[in-house]
Formats: sequence, structure tokens, C-alpha cells
Amino acid sequence: MIRIGVIGYGYWGPNLVRNFVEVPGAEVGVICDLRPEQLAKAQARYPAVETTTDYREMVASPRIDAIAIATPVSSHFELAMQALQAGKHVLVEKPLAATSDQALRLIEEADRRNRVLMVDHTFVYTSAVRKIQELVTSNGLGDIYYYDSVRVNLGLFQHDVNVIWDLAVHDLSIMDYVLPLQPQAVSATGMSHIRGEPENVAYLTVFFDSCLIAHIHVNWLAPVKVRRTLIGGSRKMIVYDDLEPSEKVKIYDKGITINESPESIYQMLISYRIGDMWAPHLERTEALRTEALHFLSCIEHGERPITNGEAGLRVVRIIEAAVQSMAERGQLVELYTVGVTA
Amino acid sequence: MIRIGVIGYGYWGPNLVRNFVEVPGAEVGVICDLRPEQLAKAQARYPAVETTTDYREMVASPRIDAIAIATPVSSHFELAMQALQAGKHVLVEKPLAATSDQALRLIEEADRRNRVLMVDHTFVYTSAVRKIQELVTSNGLGDIYYYDSVRVNLGLFQHDVNVIWDLAVHDLSIMDYVLPLQPQAVSATGMSHIRGEPENVAYLTVFFDSCLIAHIHVNWLAPVKVRRTLIGGSRKMIVYDDLEPSEKVKIYDKGITINESPESIYQMLISYRIGDMWAPHLERTEALRTEALHFLSCIEHGERPITNGEAGLRVVRIIEAAVQSMAERGQLVELYTVGVTA
Amino acid sequence: MIRIGVIGYGYWGPNLVRNFVEVPGAEVGVICDLRPEQLAKAQARYPAVETTTDYREMVASPRIDAIAIATPVSSHFELAMQALQAGKHVLVEKPLAATSDQALRLIEEADRRNRVLMVDHTFVYTSAVRKIQELVTSNGLGDIYYYDSVRVNLGLFQHDVNVIWDLAVHDLSIMDYVLPLQPQAVSATGMSHIRGEPENVAYLTVFFDSCLIAHIHVNWLAPVKVRRTLIGGSRKMIVYDDLEPSEKVKIYDKGITINESPESIYQMLISYRIGDMWAPHLERTEALRTEALHFLSCIEHGERPITNGEAGLRVVRIIEAAVQSMAERGQLVELYTVGVTA
Amino acid sequence: MIRIGVIGYGYWGPNLVRNFVEVPGAEVGVICDLRPEQLAKAQARYPAVETTTDYREMVASPRIDAIAIATPVSSHFELAMQALQAGKHVLVEKPLAATSDQALRLIEEADRRNRVLMVDHTFVYTSAVRKIQELVTSNGLGDIYYYDSVRVNLGLFQHDVNVIWDLAVHDLSIMDYVLPLQPQAVSATGMSHIRGEPENVAYLTVFFDSCLIAHIHVNWLAPVKVRRTLIGGSRKMIVYDDLEPSEKVKIYDKGITINESPESIYQMLISYRIGDMWAPHLERTEALRTEALHFLSCIEHGERPITNGEAGLRVVRIIEAAVQSMAERGQLVELYTVGVTA
Repeated sequence: MIRIGVIGYGYWGPNLVRNFVEVPGAEVGVICDLRPEQLAKAQARYPAVETTTDYREMVASPRIDAIAIATPVSSHFELAMQALQAGKHVLVEKPLAATSDQALRLIEEADRRNRVLMVDHTFVYTSAVRKIQELVTSNGLGDIYYYDSVRVNLGLFQHDVNVIWDLAVHDLSIMDYVLPLQPQAVSATGMSHIRGEPENVAYLTVFFDSCLIAHIHVNWLAPVKVRRTLIGGSRKMIVYDDLEPSEKVKIYDKGITINESPESIYQMLISYRIGDMWAPHLERTEALRTEALHFLSCIEHGERPITNGEAGLRVVRIIEAAVQSMAERGQLVELYTVGVTA
Repeated sequence: MIRIGVIGYGYWGPNLVRNFVEVPGAEVGVICDLRPEQLAKAQARYPAVETTTDYREMVASPRIDAIAIATPVSSHFELAMQALQAGKHVLVEKPLAATSDQALRLIEEADRRNRVLMVDHTFVYTSAVRKIQELVTSNGLGDIYYYDSVRVNLGLFQHDVNVIWDLAVHDLSIMDYVLPLQPQAVSATGMSHIRGEPENVAYLTVFFDSCLIAHIHVNWLAPVKVRRTLIGGSRKMIVYDDLEPSEKVKIYDKGITINESPESIYQMLISYRIGDMWAPHLERTEALRTEALHFLSCIEHGERPITNGEAGLRVVRIIEAAVQSMAERGQLVELYTVGVTA
Repeated sequence: MIRIGVIGYGYWGPNLVRNFVEVPGAEVGVICDLRPEQLAKAQARYPAVETTTDYREMVASPRIDAIAIATPVSSHFELAMQALQAGKHVLVEKPLAATSDQALRLIEEADRRNRVLMVDHTFVYTSAVRKIQELVTSNGLGDIYYYDSVRVNLGLFQHDVNVIWDLAVHDLSIMDYVLPLQPQAVSATGMSHIRGEPENVAYLTVFFDSCLIAHIHVNWLAPVKVRRTLIGGSRKMIVYDDLEPSEKVKIYDKGITINESPESIYQMLISYRIGDMWAPHLERTEALRTEALHFLSCIEHGERPITNGEAGLRVVRIIEAAVQSMAERGQLVELYTVGVTA
Repeated sequence: MIRIGVIGYGYWGPNLVRNFVEVPGAEVGVICDLRPEQLAKAQARYPAVETTTDYREMVASPRIDAIAIATPVSSHFELAMQALQAGKHVLVEKPLAATSDQALRLIEEADRRNRVLMVDHTFVYTSAVRKIQELVTSNGLGDIYYYDSVRVNLGLFQHDVNVIWDLAVHDLSIMDYVLPLQPQAVSATGMSHIRGEPENVAYLTVFFDSCLIAHIHVNWLAPVKVRRTLIGGSRKMIVYDDLEPSEKVKIYDKGITINESPESIYQMLISYRIGDMWAPHLERTEALRTEALHFLSCIEHGERPITNGEAGLRVVRIIEAAVQSMAERGQLVELYTVGVTA
């Protein structure tokens, strides 16, 4: 039985608590939040669980094996570092940290202590994204040409981070899991429509070391909710619509066939291929449950999580580059993917 | 009765011919195409119309008052210039010309000769776009925050121009008509997935002299057809979906209300406003019919068309800047909107 | 503070408990279920609430003011009658009872004891249905021509009642609330596709004393989930799609205009009217919360609920007639709507 | 070269003419209509084709091999009979005739003269319906449980026939082609909302000699256009949505599995099966072109058309029964499917 402490009982924390309460092999020992009214809610729902406003107490407790952190990004590093230093395994809500330097230091600390460091890239644990990853990995799509995602809705405006940190992080974590190549450079644009507030709309283009191109559109001020990703391959193409109640992933046997023109070696003959569409059945297991079980399994068997610290770092690096590019209105920012540890 | 000559009877030309045949006040006198098999089709359908493979003959004919050009972009300038110099009124398929310099020279020639020069920005003549323009102009949306358009499908790959020239031109012509501000700079990215061929996917961000931002996504290699534009204003927001059979324009009484926080002048209080949605009834008149009638009316009354040479020039300028930016992977390119004529 | 007892903690009971726990003015005193494992779940979630497997204990308890019943239909009458006889106010899950005779006796008992008898026609308390009722009542639609509803999905097959009792009851309860007229006769057809089991697909036509016609299609064996109602009026028409995330009710300014033909008094001239579409903003309050508050308010002020015993009786009468008609493959069954009590 | 005469150049006639003009192996010799203004349109479009207001002339002409009839239903019998008697092959717009007796006499006349009699059940020639027929015939769906179709829109109100004759004929002709069983009885309901005019909304239930049940909903007064058919089988289920631009036919690997309960032989254990969805690619050939080619092929090779006179008769018989049932508000009407010829 692995005993979990959860820091942060605001929007996401209750979901973490509920899943760790429900999965076999774990129990939630302590819930920590600075706001007593949030702790009262936790207490009402889980009378058997201890609560505290002092995270140091939880971190120091020998009865806690692992800590899940669901607090604002700015506090991720400090809390995760203290938990690792106290010998706890750590699960951190996305994004892993506020800077790539912080993310790197967390990875090093986890390695040094031989503890599990996992980032909560929730979408990676959905059956939709896992199905897409299978298709890409098994070369079912052929060469990947592009990855295009739209994630827009009305609200919830953040005051401390811009829309890239808040929403694009989801797409970047999916891309990190699904795409077989590492990104090389980023060009981003965006805008704030409220004086003094962070950007609420942004567009990111991510370049790779091939003809693969990725693009993410995020917006807090859209009249409709859209969660749609197009993935184009040389053999097949995918539409992943997370708002579809059942057929979230549709695979189109569509594309082009390219032949050299007999008349000119400089011009290609392009013919269009239009075949069937197929929507695989997807299991309805809640992603966070799959993720919680994976975290427990990694602790038990000493394995590295799918969404380990390095995955968290890679995502933070792209965000940093995108934010820098956005400030310079699209100026290309290279990603120097130096190895994490020697 | 205004007698029209049409050059180019390929994909778009037959639509021009059909509309000029059907509207009152015009007749189609001559159809010109280099391909005899295309002329045979025209002849079969319109036995009374003359056909020729020699456009010079049409341009020289005193029985032709106006010439509509539906040929590849590379020939627009030469054909339009000769027609203007021969004293004809001219309607040119979009985009007006292959360079802004050419567009400028056509404008000057038309002014000098006092002839109508109109560019076939077809979408401007749809009831959907006119309704949107009305709403924006009457300040129904409040301040315009963003304009976001997606225009993707599978095919038709062009060999001579990239996807910006082919598809984004539609969005840029709509923006030129609808938005109250002039763009200042462009950042674009894109990719070709076929060796030696022009870019088949592209993303354009257009900056304005305010917090308005526009973005266009065009793609010839998408598994599904999308024609969707989001327009965000401070009061209302629009979703314009051209594939909807009837409710193409939906107006959402949604948005945010911003107040200064009583606690901090540096932080805004944001509240969300969610009201009714409204889809105005749109007339089903074919856009090209409205456009043909407008061309005839401009000739008759000596008026300047809504989509005059300057509109064509503005669009070509943005395309040129976007293509340049795309070659430099998002590098910002400023638009110097020098006045057209003194 | 009104103290509620809830009988039945299976599929629907937990929703009743949660809402009575959360609304002001009530508290849940006892939860009753025959299955100890269900009571264990209730206990885990609400440690302060008593549980029992003996409903008689609850009915007899002086500390319970009102009883909510969420058990199989066959037990509704017995449980509700005993509760009323013990002087409790009663809320019964739909349908009110297994026969109209039972429903009638419950109404009489409640009247005699001066207790609130309310049936849980949940949809009546949704903001969508209330908006529709407002539109109909205020004559916004003009004369109502038809009411057409489709409620189909895969599962959940019932063994004790057919699909009319299970699904059509929702549509009938909405119709009962929304339509200004009383039904006169029913013709129904249906089929069972599993030997020995009740009908899993059914079609009901309900006739009224005017040219209003209603039709309900229910099916447990459909590949897709549909929840769509069309309401046609002489002035406007409604599409109510309960699966739409936000625009559930769309009002179309469409219809026909009828004039007597100048040429023939026997033939009408029909012209089509196509105007705007409008989707009013709907509050997102959970229906059951609104309903729970209404039940409490009726108890407190001695008022009759919107979905009172008579509403429950009217719905049961149509179901009875429909089941009879279905057995005779569409044979018309008249509804004798004799007054309930003098 | 088969020479075709077309009678009726109103709504549907021009489509027949266009397709017979375009397919190889046929030419349109004469077009007949009582309205000179319609003939003028035909003449303008097809200058080489003769026109006449006198159908007798066409019927008598030795230069005409086959006659296509696209006139109001009431005239089908007279025109088709005269054409057959003059030795012409005949294609009749749906429905074949105004009564089953008329249909029977046409069949007999065609048999006697050894001429092709074909009814224009256009949907049978669409790639969507042919794909569905393949699936049903190859037993891909298992036992067919139900066929449910909705065909509603605003307009076009007919004065001479009700909505069953006008719209349900499409569904009945598809059912006749697709379903492996013959219908046994009909129960129908409907309503007219305009005094003195035929019913504008109708509901038909068709019973078969098994647990297959079919239902058709047709309506001229609906706010939205719907063309959706659900077909439920024991193995798979189909959604056929004719308004979908590309994925018109979706096949769901969904259903139920039934086992006898170990506890009771009277109660079945039902488990739900939810698998993939698949949308086969459909050719985009115009149905009427396929149909025209089939008509020509039948003439050339002396074969019986897929939609022969018997198919037309079977459809008319169901319509007659439905109209009779509707007049008696759902009263069951048996279909006596006496063999057509000995």
C-alpha cells in the first residue's frame, strides 16, 4: 500500500485525490492546502483523510511515500524539490516547472535519490492519444507530414501565465508522446486583449528536422469550444476530436500519391487517394485512473514513467522558446536539446 | 447592353460566362481559350457565342466593352494591361496580379484610361460576408480582437503557386473587406511535403496597429474540408462556417467584461458573459451573380467597385509579405502601405 | 429544515440524495435500500446519514417529513401509499405508478391527507424545457401543429417494463407540461427483438382535439444516441436537441403562409417563410436541484407542485393506452380523461 | 444508339434529359411538355433537340425507341400505357402509378410487348444504397431488426398528393431494394395542417413476417432538413445520412449479445457490444447517370431492370395501404401480396 499526500485541493487536486482513493494499491494519507475552506470540503468528502495547511509537515511525515502536487506552476519547483529531498516519489501537475532550468534540477535530484519523478501530462493517458501513438509508432500513417491542433474556448483567463502555458502545454505533451521526432525550432505569435494581462490567444509553429511541421492554436476568448487535432501522414490521416462523445479518433485512408512526371523531372504528378474512414472503439477508462496506476507501478517496480521528468523538461523548453518567439512577433527560436545528464 | 469577352474557359471561366449570360444588361460576345477542346465545350453549351484561341483578336474587337480574365495568375498582368490599353473595362480573377508592382501598374492604367478595374474577390459578394461586414461596420461586435480562419481540404495541389496564393487569398480578401483596420506586418510559416513543389500547408499571422490579430491556416493535404472563421469582438463573437447549408453565420452574445480590480491596479477582474446565439437568415443569391451585376453597374455609372484595384493590391501585398516571411520561417515582414497614387 | 428519507439507492437514488444534501432547507435523514452493498456506498459517501434495509422503519420515523422514492415502478404504489398514510410528503420517480388506477388512488390519498404528492418528471425542471414552455404559453410559436421526439440509444434493456415505460415517459411528461391541449387517442406500434422480453423499440402517435399531432420514437437498440424534438408551430418552429452542449433549444422563424387561392376556393396558396434562427441562453442549473427546491417550497407553502399527481396520472394513462395499442399493432385507443376528483 | 423521348420538362425532367444527353449509347430526340415556356428553356439549352407540346406525336414517332416520363403521378398510367402500346421501352418517374391496379396493368402490357418497364427509384442507384444492399445481402448485419427513416424538410407542399406519395416513396423504394423480406401490413398516422389540403406529416409502421419492423417519418413542415436512416441488425448497425457530404454510410460494430439466463429460462441475459465504426468510401457517380446506363443496358440486352415494374407495384401497394390506414388513424391494413404473373 503506497501512501499518497496531495498538495493543492483547488480545481485539479480533487480529481487526483478521487483517483488515488479509488485505485487499488494506494491510499490518500494527507491533503494539504493553504485555504481552510478547501480543506473543509476535502474533509467532508473524505472524513478519514488528514488535512493540513502546512506542506512541510506532509513532506516530513514518514507515513507518506509519494506526493502529488496540484498547485500553481510557480510553486512546482519548490514543492517538488523538497519532496524529492525528503525521499518521496513525486507526481507534478503540468507543466513540470516554470523554467527548463528548474525542470532539469528536479530530474537530477530524482535521479540522485532514485525516486520516481512524473509529470501529469494527463492526455497521454487517454485511450484516444494512446491509440494515436500506436498508429504512428506502427507506421500506420506513413511519414508524418503535419500535426495541427486547435484548443480554444471562452475562459478561464489566468493572471499569472499566458495561454501557451495554460493550454498549449496539453498539445505539446501529446506531441511529445506521439511524434517520433524532436522539435528543432519554434515561431510563435500571440496577443493580449486586456491591458497588463498575459496573452490570451497564441499560435505556435514547431519545426522539426524533416518536413514535419506542427502548429498549435490556443485561445481563451473563443465563442465555441474546439478541441481538434489533424495529423497528416503519407499513408493515412487522423482527425482527433476530443469533444466527440464516442468517435474521438477517425482515421482516413486518404492522401496523395506522388510520381515523377514523365515530361519533367522537376514536376511531380500528384494523384488523390480517397478510401474508407475508420473510428476505432476506445476504452472509456478515465485517463487519471490509468495515470495513477502507472505512477504506482513505477514506484513499485522502480521504472521510469512514460511522462517522466525529461518529457516534462522537453515540453517546458518548447514553451519557453514559444514565449520568447511570441515576444518578438514570430522570430524563430532554436531549441538546443542538449542532453539532460552526462 | 454591355458586351463581355471572357478569357480562360477552364475551372472558373464557365461560372463567369454562365453568370454574365444570365444577368440582365450584359451579353457574352466572345470566349477565348488556348485549348480548342475547352472552346468546343463552350460552343456546345452556348452556340450563339463566338470563340477564339487568340485573345488579341478579342482585345482589339470594337464589339467588346469589357473583358473578364480567368487564367493562371502569371498571365493576369499582361492580359489585363492590354485590355485596359485597348479601352476595355476589366474584371480579373483573384489574385489581381502576381506582384504588387504589377497590381499598382494596372491600377494606374485603369485610372489613366478611366476604366473600371475590378478583382474577382468572390467571397466579398456572398450574403454571409456582407452580413459580417455590416455587423462589424455598425460596431455590433465592439472592438475587433481577432480574426481566425481555417481553410483546409484535400487537393487541388497547384504546381505554379503555393497554398497561400491559392487559398489564403480568399481569407485575405474577406479580411480586407470586413476589417476596419489596415494590416501592418506578417509572420508566416509553412512547408512543402513534395520535393520541388510549392508549400502545401501554411500559417499566417497578420498584425495590425492595435491589439487586433489575424491568423489564417491553409492546407491542401487535410483529411476533412474545413471552412471556418472565428471573429472575436469585445461585445460579440462570430462563427462563420461556409460549409453549413443554411446557418453559415452565427453571432454569439458572449465575451468577457473587464474591470479594474479594487485590490490592485495591475490586475484586471475578468467576468464571463454568455448570452444568446443568433443566426441571421441569408439570401441564397449566387455570389458571382451579385458580383457580375456590380461590375455592370460600375461600368454604367462610372463608379469604383467594392473590390477595386486597390483592394486587389492590398491583398497581393500581404501575400508577398507572407511568402517572404514563410521562406524565413516566421521572420516578421512589415507592410509599407504607401499610398497608391498621389 | 425538512428531513428527507430516500428509498432506493441504485441508479437514480444517489442523484436525489446528492441534491437534497446540497440544497438549503433540507437534510437527508435516512437512506433505505434492500441491498446492503448499496447502503455501504451511501454510508461511505455520507457518513452522517443513517441507513436501513427496512423502509417501514423510515416510514414510521417521526423524524422524517418527506420521502423520495427511487425504486422499480412496480413498488411505487405500495411505498408511496404507506408514506402518505404515515403523513409524509412524497416525491416519486417517474412514472408515478404502474397503473392509472394506482396513480388515482395516490392522488386521492394525498388530497385526503393534505400532503404534497409530486412525481419526478425531471425534464420539466430543465431550463431547456422551461424555455420551450414559455415560448408555447406566450404564443410565440402560434398554433402548435406537431410535436415529434426521438429518444434512442444502445441500452439499457429493462426486463420488467418495455421501452415506452422506460423512455417515452420522458417525452410524455415534457408534452404534458409544454402542450396546451389534452391528448384524445393513441396509436402505437413496436417490437421486441429478444424472445420473451418486452418491446425494445416503439412508435407512438398521440392525437389531440385539433390538428395537433404528436409522435414519439423510442429505441434501446440504436447505434447512436439521439435526443431530438421538433415542435412545429404556425409562426415558429423549435429544434430541441438535448445532446447539444450549449445551444439545446433553437427557434426557427420559419414556416408557411397560407392564403386562399384567387382561382379556387378549394386550393390554398402556400408560401414559405424563412427567417432567422435564435438559440436563447439557458441556465445550467441541474434540473434535479430546481426540482428538489420546488418540492421543498411546495411542502413549506402548502402548494401543488408543477408535476403533481395529476400530471403523473395523465402520463400513465397515455402509456397504458399506448401499450394496449401496441399489442394490437396500431389500433387506436381513446383516452377518456375523466376528471380526477370532484 | 438508343433514341429517347422525354415527357415532362419541369423539376425532374431536365435531370433526365441532361443524363441521357451525357451517357454514351443514347441521344435525346424529342422533349415534350405542355408549357411552351418550359420547352423554350429546353430549346435554349439543347438547340439540337426537337420539342413538342403533343406527346402523341412523340409516342407515334418511329425515330424514338424509349420514353422517359417525368409528369405528375396522375398522368403516369395513361402516358406509360400509350408508350408501351406503341412498342416503346418506358422509364417512369416514381411512383410508378397512382394505383396498384394501374401498376399491374403496365407490368402486364410490358410483359406482353416484351418491352422494358422501369421505375425511376433514383435512390436505388446511389452508391450509398447499393453499399447498404451489399452489406445486408452478404449478411454483414446479421438478422435485420428494424429500418427507421426520417425524411423531413420545409416544403415543397403538393396539392394533389400527400406527403407519403411525395416523400415516403423514396424510403419505400430503398426498403424494397435493401430488405430481404416482404412487408405484411401497415399502420400509418398523419395530419394535414392546411384545411382542404393533403396530409403534410405522416408516420408509417411497416410489419414483416418476422420481428423486423420498419418506420418512416415524412414531413413537409420541418424547420430543418433531415435525411437519416437507422438500420439495426443482430451483428451490426447502420446510420445512413444522405446529407453528410462524404461519410454517408456509417457501419457500427455495436449491438447486444443475448444468452439464456442460468437462473431463469424466462429471462435473457443481455450484454452490450461496442466496437469500431467504419465508413466505406463511396463513389460519387450521379445516381441518375447509373440509372440511365442501366436502362439502356436492359433495353440492349433484353434484361429486367433492378427497379422493374414489380418493384414499382410493391411500393405503390404499401403507399395505398398506408394512405388507407392513415385515414383510419393507425388501423392496421394487411398487404395481400398476390403474385403478379402466373
